Amino acid sequence: MTSTSINVTYRLETSGDIQALAAKIASDQSTGTFTELPGETAEVQARCAATVVQITHLPATITPSIPDATGHGPYKRADVVIAYPLEAVGTDIAALMTITIGGVFAVSGLSGVRVMDIDFPPEWACHPGPQFGIAGSRRLTGVIEGPIIASIIKPSLGLLPDEAAAVIKQLCDAGVDFIKDDEKLMSPAYSPLEARVKVIMPVIKDHEQKTGKKVMYAFGISSADPDVMMRNHDLVVQAGGNAAVININSIGYGGMSFLRKRSSLCLHAHRNGWDILTRHPGLGMEFRAYQKIWRLLGVDQFQINGIRAKYWEPDDSFVRSFGDVMTPIFSENDRALPVVCSGQWGGQAVETYQRTGRSLDLMYLGGGGIHGHPMGAASGVAAIRQAWDAARDDVSLAQKAKDHPELAAALAKWQE
Amino acid sequence: MTSTSINVTYRLETSGDIQALAAKIASDQSTGTFTELPGETAEVQARCAATVVQITHLPATITPSIPDATGHGPYKRADVVIAYPLEAVGTDIAALMTITIGGVFAVSGLSGVRVMDIDFPPEWACHPGPQFGIAGSRRLTGVIEGPIIASIIKPSLGLLPDEAAAVIKQLCDAGVDFIKDDEKLMSPAYSPLEARVKVIMPVIKDHEQKTGKKVMYAFGISSADPDVMMRNHDLVVQAGGNAAVININSIGYGGMSFLRKRSSLCLHAHRNGWDILTRHPGLGMEFRAYQKIWRLLGVDQFQINGIRAKYWEPDDSFVRSFGDVMTPIFSENDRALPVVCSGQWGGQAVETYQRTGRSLDLMYLGGGGIHGHPMGAASGVAAIRQAWDAARDDVSLAQKAKDHPELAAALAKWQE
Repeated sequence: MTSTSINVTYRLETSGDIQALAAKIASDQSTGTFTELPGETAEVQARCAATVVQITHLPATITPSIPDATGHGPYKRADVVIAYPLEAVGTDIAALMTITIGGVFAVSGLSGVRVMDIDFPPEWACHPGPQFGIAGSRRLTGVIEGPIIASIIKPSLGLLPDEAAAVIKQLCDAGVDFIKDDEKLMSPAYSPLEARVKVIMPVIKDHEQKTGKKVMYAFGISSADPDVMMRNHDLVVQAGGNAAVININSIGYGGMSFLRKRSSLCLHAHRNGWDILTRHPGLGMEFRAYQKIWRLLGVDQFQINGIRAKYWEPDDSFVRSFGDVMTPIFSENDRALPVVCSGQWGGQAVETYQRTGRSLDLMYLGGGGIHGHPMGAASGVAAIRQAWDAARDDVSLAQKAKDHPELAAALAKWQE
Repeated sequence: MTSTSINVTYRLETSGDIQALAAKIASDQSTGTFTELPGETAEVQARCAATVVQITHLPATITPSIPDATGHGPYKRADVVIAYPLEAVGTDIAALMTITIGGVFAVSGLSGVRVMDIDFPPEWACHPGPQFGIAGSRRLTGVIEGPIIASIIKPSLGLLPDEAAAVIKQLCDAGVDFIKDDEKLMSPAYSPLEARVKVIMPVIKDHEQKTGKKVMYAFGISSADPDVMMRNHDLVVQAGGNAAVININSIGYGGMSFLRKRSSLCLHAHRNGWDILTRHPGLGMEFRAYQKIWRLLGVDQFQINGIRAKYWEPDDSFVRSFGDVMTPIFSENDRALPVVCSGQWGGQAVETYQRTGRSLDLMYLGGGGIHGHPMGAASGVAAIRQAWDAARDDVSLAQKAKDHPELAAALAKWQE
């Protein structure tokens, strides 16, 4: 092991020998191949060879993560740490992904592999990280303390720009701090970004003039073409906007890197597509590893679902994700604002608060939970603020609802 | 269903009702959310709603693809085609990925989901596609017919530029048509791309002057930063190079799109990282769907493993991949040159030829199979050419080896 290395932790599963598999991965991902080579000298190996530095055995399993026709269980499991010399990888994220992750997923003789974590040496602090993060999000929204209350345009697709602007006016009047395009809305023919910016920003500005409050609006600027994405970015900036929704997997590392260098917008990351990398517990990648890469690239706000989300993700996974994005990689400033979302209506506020270290550094995003409130959107927002007040004051929602009719109505509609 | 749509085929698995799951996906991925909304009018739905157009039921399974704590099998399976209106998606690949794929992986109530195929309407022919493809690869290498014989620098990591140049001289002398950097080699401190270009291109040019043959050399120019990648691209172009290895997943759609617009290099795609999307048969994505996106983005040459590859991939999967990259999306010109690789030494030539429709439009890449040949690299190349001659002439390798000592030596070393 060289003095400076990138250490990657893999959860491996195999009917063979864990130690042999770990050694094979370290070799394949650095200097070796399927047959011995005259040029693989001791000197070459010293320069670039990856080494297995730790093996923590875990209970074996009967059912392999990937179906195994040979059926030779039980399948041994272990968390294996492999150190890759910085000399061989450098600081480029493409090199990191190809050397330490890409090829590992292709190795034969395993029935499961999951990247659990990546530990970076100080040299990796060269990456830009978030431009705004938690402090910048608070500064731009003017929300000095407590959760930033957010909403999203619904229906998610299909509204014409003027129809969307009307919804946004309603949400501004309802008192939200932040509004976003649905992640599925970028620049379709029926609602081109330019037309949307043109009618939405006046609503935001008009509200600011009347109330002194500038609602942060995140426009869907994602494009697989970085040139198009930058034109989208510029449209928003020129109109006085300050945020954008970025579908990180759909633009890729290259798109994100390109944007971050040139961006003056607060970047709100939606991780759609991530699920397939993490949904099977024996395969893919933990959010802990995944989110580090995207934070290094510059994500300011990270959507991480929430308690009782409408998607598959279990609550425990959300709680871990919250801790992950709030844990510094190199400094406090590289943390991303956790965006708690999906099926949220306030009913999850107390549990969210209690299970995430009583943190109020978060964005709490209600879509249907605001639009669908029986007394209207303003009451939806009020109910959510009441729920968070209850959380902070260690009061139960039922107690709080006694003299807060908006929260009472939300509980009546959505509490299971 | 609108007249123009993007049709995506998913293999779904659920302990619930397939039809209900399909309908939920179509709704979630277009106009719906978890609660009814006042704005989801008939007009909005007509504009953007995705629709289930076909359900083909498959045999149920007892073991769920994703472990299911509730254990309520059997798990029903079906191939479901959902049509997304072009109006809602447009032609941007980021929109495609987020709307039709990203969110689907997050849907609750399923124990398996795999994207099997994507059918594009003619409007998607707006994407650039390969700049060189099969015809351009032949033109640049001067290989008018038969397989393009290729090799790679070994050891894959750790050689200094001068050491690499010496290996390349040996491979040129051995008679290969194409050489590439290992995909794991981009621009590490011990072998910066600039230094490599500086010593390798003179070897390529010197060989061309002496023999009239310009070997195509693909440099590892990938970077997660498109600006860096373009500088790398320009270094290669300025030195007279004509090809590059691109780690497509490690740069992402944005990186690829940015590069393709500006590239004058033949782009050789390495798909490391893909495996985790496809290795579990009930999850992720078929190569058929995946490779279409990357071909639209501009891949010229596509690595697809080979018969008896050293990785996990079964031969049948390789054979399907070969057919996939050779099948036009919109025209013959959008096909990518199949790059048959991984553990190849010639012994797989006959079976490859017979199982891929007797095609000689391919690159056949030997790494260890050339460097590790007992009589040296030139004999490794000769053995591979002899094996392909045998394939084309319907002669067995054993027969061919009788009067071809290089092939005989390869068979003696590697035939199992």
